[in-house]
Amino acid sequence: MLFKVEMTVNIPKDMPAEEFEAIKLKEKNYAQKLQEDGIWMHLWRVVGQYANVSIFDVKDNTELHDLLMGLPLYPFMEMSVTPLCPHPSSIK
Amino acid sequence: MLFKVEMTVNIPKDMPAEEFEAIKLKEKNYAQKLQEDGIWMHLWRVVGQYANVSIFDVKDNTELHDLLMGLPLYPFMEMSVTPLCPHPSSIK
Amino acid sequence: MLFKVEMTVNIPKDMPAEEFEAIKLKEKNYAQKLQEDGIWMHLWRVVGQYANVSIFDVKDNTELHDLLMGLPLYPFMEMSVTPLCPHPSSIK
Amino acid sequence: MLFKVEMTVNIPKDMPAEEFEAIKLKEKNYAQKLQEDGIWMHLWRVVGQYANVSIFDVKDNTELHDLLMGLPLYPFMEMSVTPLCPHPSSIK
Amino acid sequence: MLFKVEMTVNIPKDMPAEEFEAIKLKEKNYAQKLQEDGIWMHLWRVVGQYANVSIFDVKDNTELHDLLMGLPLYPFMEMSVTPLCPHPSSIK
Amino acid sequence: MLFKVEMTVNIPKDMPAEEFEAIKLKEKNYAQKLQEDGIWMHLWRVVGQYANVSIFDVKDNTELHDLLMGLPLYPFMEMSVTPLCPHPSSIK
Amino acid sequence: MLFKVEMTVNIPKDMPAEEFEAIKLKEKNYAQKLQEDGIWMHLWRVVGQYANVSIFDVKDNTELHDLLMGLPLYPFMEMSVTPLCPHPSSIK
Amino acid sequence: MLFKVEMTVNIPKDMPAEEFEAIKLKEKNYAQKLQEDGIWMHLWRVVGQYANVSIFDVKDNTELHDLLMGLPLYPFMEMSVTPLCPHPSSIK
Amino acid sequence: MLFKVEMTVNIPKDMPAEEFEAIKLKEKNYAQKLQEDGIWMHLWRVVGQYANVSIFDVKDNTELHDLLMGLPLYPFMEMSVTPLCPHPSSIK
Amino acid sequence: MLFKVEMTVNIPKDMPAEEFEAIKLKEKNYAQKLQEDGIWMHLWRVVGQYANVSIFDVKDNTELHDLLMGLPLYPFMEMSVTPLCPHPSSIK
Repeated sequence: MLFKVEMTVNIPKDMPAEEFEAIKLKEKNYAQKLQEDGIWMHLWRVVGQYANVSIFDVKDNTELHDLLMGLPLYPFMEMSVTPLCPHPSSIK
Repeated sequence: MLFKVEMTVNIPKDMPAEEFEAIKLKEKNYAQKLQEDGIWMHLWRVVGQYANVSIFDVKDNTELHDLLMGLPLYPFMEMSVTPLCPHPSSIK
Repeated sequence: MLFKVEMTVNIPKDMPAEEFEAIKLKEKNYAQKLQEDGIWMHLWRVVGQYANVSIFDVKDNTELHDLLMGLPLYPFMEMSVTPLCPHPSSIK
Repeated sequence: MLFKVEMTVNIPKDMPAEEFEAIKLKEKNYAQKLQEDGIWMHLWRVVGQYANVSIFDVKDNTELHDLLMGLPLYPFMEMSVTPLCPHPSSIK
Repeated sequence: MLFKVEMTVNIPKDMPAEEFEAIKLKEKNYAQKLQEDGIWMHLWRVVGQYANVSIFDVKDNTELHDLLMGLPLYPFMEMSVTPLCPHPSSIK
Repeated sequence: MLFKVEMTVNIPKDMPAEEFEAIKLKEKNYAQKLQEDGIWMHLWRVVGQYANVSIFDVKDNTELHDLLMGLPLYPFMEMSVTPLCPHPSSIK
Repeated sequence: MLFKVEMTVNIPKDMPAEEFEAIKLKEKNYAQKLQEDGIWMHLWRVVGQYANVSIFDVKDNTELHDLLMGLPLYPFMEMSVTPLCPHPSSIK
Repeated sequence: MLFKVEMTVNIPKDMPAEEFEAIKLKEKNYAQKLQEDGIWMHLWRVVGQYANVSIFDVKDNTELHDLLMGLPLYPFMEMSVTPLCPHPSSIK
Repeated sequence: MLFKVEMTVNIPKDMPAEEFEAIKLKEKNYAQKLQEDGIWMHLWRVVGQYANVSIFDVKDNTELHDLLMGLPLYPFMEMSVTPLCPHPSSIK
Repeated sequence: MLFKVEMTVNIPKDMPAEEFEAIKLKEKNYAQKLQEDGIWMHLWRVVGQYANVSIFDVKDNTELHDLLMGLPLYPFMEMSVTPLCPHPSSIK
């Protein structure tokens, strides 16, 4: 079951660089694990923004919620979640 | 080069049913041709809306503009276009 | 799996009364069938508005989309869909 | 008498973890007491947000206001309150 | 129990003058009856707008909803409803 | 001459409790004096918000501005001011 | 007593040219009379818009409301009204 | 050439009183000099807000930009700039 | 003196094709004349929209207003006008 | 391939002056290099704002993203990115 999730990251200006790098690394590993598991299906960067457009394929709402709340960068994110379903004109 | 395009369709209430069916058929053929050509990469329906979230892979802005304006349903659409680029954490 | 759906109805001023009554009756039967099936869990009227707040319990996004698009009043509705999941403080 | 209340929580980044845990515990006890009393009828989590959708059944506006202002997390909340009433198509 | 209700009226340009005058008269009688009954406590005109700010004193949400939906001008109104309660600094 | 003024209060999280209590007391005295003088005609609390809906009866704009700017809580307020006038359907 | 009023005019596309010219002439005479009387103090056109920024000097809210509602173009206008008062740094 | 400029001032809560008074004095002198020069034509206070509505008469855009950026309070201001031109119904 | 003007065109669905083509031709000639005169400096199409981003170089506000109001498509346009001035980092 | 990028800069009030001057100098050099390379085609200041309107000519989305993220002032910027394409009425 598919969801579009758009995430915008706002890092406090006074966060020490190393702390930021550490969180980013955790975020990258977290995101890549979910991609390898086929859950985080697509992850694109929005031009000019510290933001992404993502497509998730999850079992249900709760699974999506838990994995989103588990994002290391979650406390610094604004997020919108849009449920998707197959389009009648899609050839997939 | 990738773009996210979100399209919402508003059909005038007084459009005859057959005219609507005809345009929808043209739209479907148009969309499926572009998908087969690998240009319209993803096409998902937004739950509860006569709207879609699409990902296009085009050569440049002009190609995207021309194909969007060529949509049979274009006159009845509201559209947002967001340029995307590869995300550093994407495994693709 | 739960979704909050808020629906606002805008009936064209020139719709004949009988046509409106007929659609409303179809809508009522449609809504009550889904409530009896345990799918349309809650249906409340918003004070002062021709609008409702509803909670749906569905198998997946597609099921929700199909039943929303099947609403007789759908062509006259503006709708927002919000995916929900169990709250850690809920006693249910 | 029913009200929909949507609450979004924004915790200051510099709040010590223990203080946050303590407030959350108070909030949970507060919420569960009201649920047991049949006042806080429904409490759902919004997917991807530190937010909830709740339905309250109260005697009057003042009772609702007092219990909302009494929420331990109230100082960190943005809230919207929507008065509801029975829907003519509801089977309850 | 008090509610603030703000109403903005948009009359279709093609409504015949007599029809408009007739509805306005019904609206006036309806509003004045409710004022005499102490339900429609305050009714003020917003400067420069075909809109009003009103305060209603009703038994519950349902009573408010029914009387608002009964307004002759209701089909031509946009409305916002805000539940109020006594202010700790009010001397009334 | 009547004005509707809606005030929302945002108190900085780091304001010492005593300072807050002191300002609130000053605000209450200030508000009650104006009510006794018949200037601050109505003062209601918005359910679920640290906000009020007020009706002022003042000689002119300048008088309203001066008394609003004199509110002890003014520095922590967001405010909207709407000029009102008698409604043709009001029985007062 | 001063008010800023911003007016935007939206003329229905199907209004006959002569009718539009007639209303515009009435509007011009109406506006110039009020300017001569020193009530409509300033009237400027917003670049690129069929809109104006105006400053009115009136006795009270009711006078302002009545003269605004009397504008021949009123039915085709969207309007915002902002009460003003003398600025402490103004040399007038 | 005329421009409407609306300025809203937000002073940080932790700015020392003397510093604030000093900047305000500079601002007042700056504003009054420009008024005496006939550049800052009108300066009105918005009721209930730490904001003003101003009309500037300048040679060109650059002159306006430079004088606005030179305002002592500029760093604490939000500003909107609207180009104006003579209105066909104005008697000036 | 430079201005950014963004124009969005909304053509009524029931406008006959020939009438639309005629207006478009007039618009094209009008726009190209102004470009040749060095007034309409830049004219770009916004991808996916019947809209443009333009840069005008005009003597003053009135000149800009008159030429914008003279656009054959003006009655079908929504427009925003932003005054520009030289940027300190520009090498032109 | 052209993009309009609008940038608004918000410098924290507590940034030391020298640090701000240093970043501005880096920003100026960075911007002028890109202008000399024909990538940053236009850079205009918005009157009354610490903001600019820019036109970029880039190979693709990724090039634009990388150069925007490389702006020394990027951490203090809010940005909007709009893809453009040639306008049928443009004479260039």
